[in-house]
Amino acid sequence: MKYRLYYWPEIQGRGEFIRLALEYADADYVDVWRTSGSRNHKSKHPPFAPPYLAAGKLVIAQTANILLYLGPRLRLAPRDEAGRLWAHQLQLTVADWLDEVHDAHHPIGSGLYYEEQRREAKRRSADFLASRLPKYLDYFEGVLRTSGGPWLLGKRLAYPDLSLFQMLAGLRYAFPRSQARLEGRYPRTVALHQRVAGHPRLVRYLASPRRIPFNRQGIFRHYPELDRI
Amino acid sequence: MKYRLYYWPEIQGRGEFIRLALEYADADYVDVWRTSGSRNHKSKHPPFAPPYLAAGKLVIAQTANILLYLGPRLRLAPRDEAGRLWAHQLQLTVADWLDEVHDAHHPIGSGLYYEEQRREAKRRSADFLASRLPKYLDYFEGVLRTSGGPWLLGKRLAYPDLSLFQMLAGLRYAFPRSQARLEGRYPRTVALHQRVAGHPRLVRYLASPRRIPFNRQGIFRHYPELDRI
Repeated sequence: MKYRLYYWPEIQGRGEFIRLALEYADADYVDVWRTSGSRNHKSKHPPFAPPYLAAGKLVIAQTANILLYLGPRLRLAPRDEAGRLWAHQLQLTVADWLDEVHDAHHPIGSGLYYEEQRREAKRRSADFLASRLPKYLDYFEGVLRTSGGPWLLGKRLAYPDLSLFQMLAGLRYAFPRSQARLEGRYPRTVALHQRVAGHPRLVRYLASPRRIPFNRQGIFRHYPELDRI
Repeated sequence: MKYRLYYWPEIQGRGEFIRLALEYADADYVDVWRTSGSRNHKSKHPPFAPPYLAAGKLVIAQTANILLYLGPRLRLAPRDEAGRLWAHQLQLTVADWLDEVHDAHHPIGSGLYYEEQRREAKRRSADFLASRLPKYLDYFEGVLRTSGGPWLLGKRLAYPDLSLFQMLAGLRYAFPRSQARLEGRYPRTVALHQRVAGHPRLVRYLASPRRIPFNRQGIFRHYPELDRI
């Protein structure tokens, strides 16, 4: 199956969670908007927003839903229902976490510039770093402890592991001082990040032009004034 | 199958989307925390937060994930994969919408009181009502137009229809002036709401003590100063 991914070509954003799964699995895919100007896609199941994935006649939107579909096909999810639901549950928790990362720099409106909500972003980021971020990190570290590791589901890597890698990568870019202080408490999560980053296909992908650099248009943004002092 | 739902007993919140599906399908379930003091639930798949559902040996968290599981079992979702993914995609879009409703009154931190973020809430609510709310309503009205109605998936009701009913009910409670102005543009969505509300099992449920009234602890909150003037 040849997959076609539709997502903003300038940012990692939500699309990156799908790119990572496709790259890790060495899937046959085209990142459509990075390779052509075409923006049109008709479907009887219209997406609310990118990313969306075309696979044969199917057009699927919502990041976690796309990964739910791709998981078993890319051998990145268990085949049994209980395992698939658990992987999806973890992915939906990553999605909630990512929303909070976004809102740390855009607490008032996604259609407004950061500069129009900087004061509010300082308050929200402080709350995010003090109370929400540790809650998410505690949770995923706990899942790795319970699973026995090295992966969230145990002995086999599944797509939420790639997403947890991406969360840590993004947080290090956006909040380097905060991460430097926090990460000592999360050895299993840090080890997972390293293990993913060291996989040969990921090494190749991360060094390629297909990996868009983090930047201030994306979801993870580095504004020094929002990081811990 | 007897289902056990675990969710805060004082609010509709996210749990209500599951309650509505269970009630509409006349399923055998217990709303555990409304009927007993027990708060403990051990699982090898720990939830990040309520709601979660116990079904035999499974414990499933994340509202949309629970509905993904329940959908075919309660005959509230298509059986084919494309239909199930589409229903789930709509549900995930409802989840995003609901997050934005929550953040309209809590833009800075979910652990802070509304009174501690009232000024920011006014800005965020104004942006939500002016730009985000119409975008979501336009989208779902468009889906109803494309499907041919009366339901989001066409001729048969599926669980996202119950969720869209709940969104409209909540928005009318939280933002009555804004809804009064907007709803004329969304006849299909309004008709869907009425149709769900008029279903005998829903009429019975909504009039029962099992339906918790909207209140200022829930996700939909009525603060007159956040509504349109």
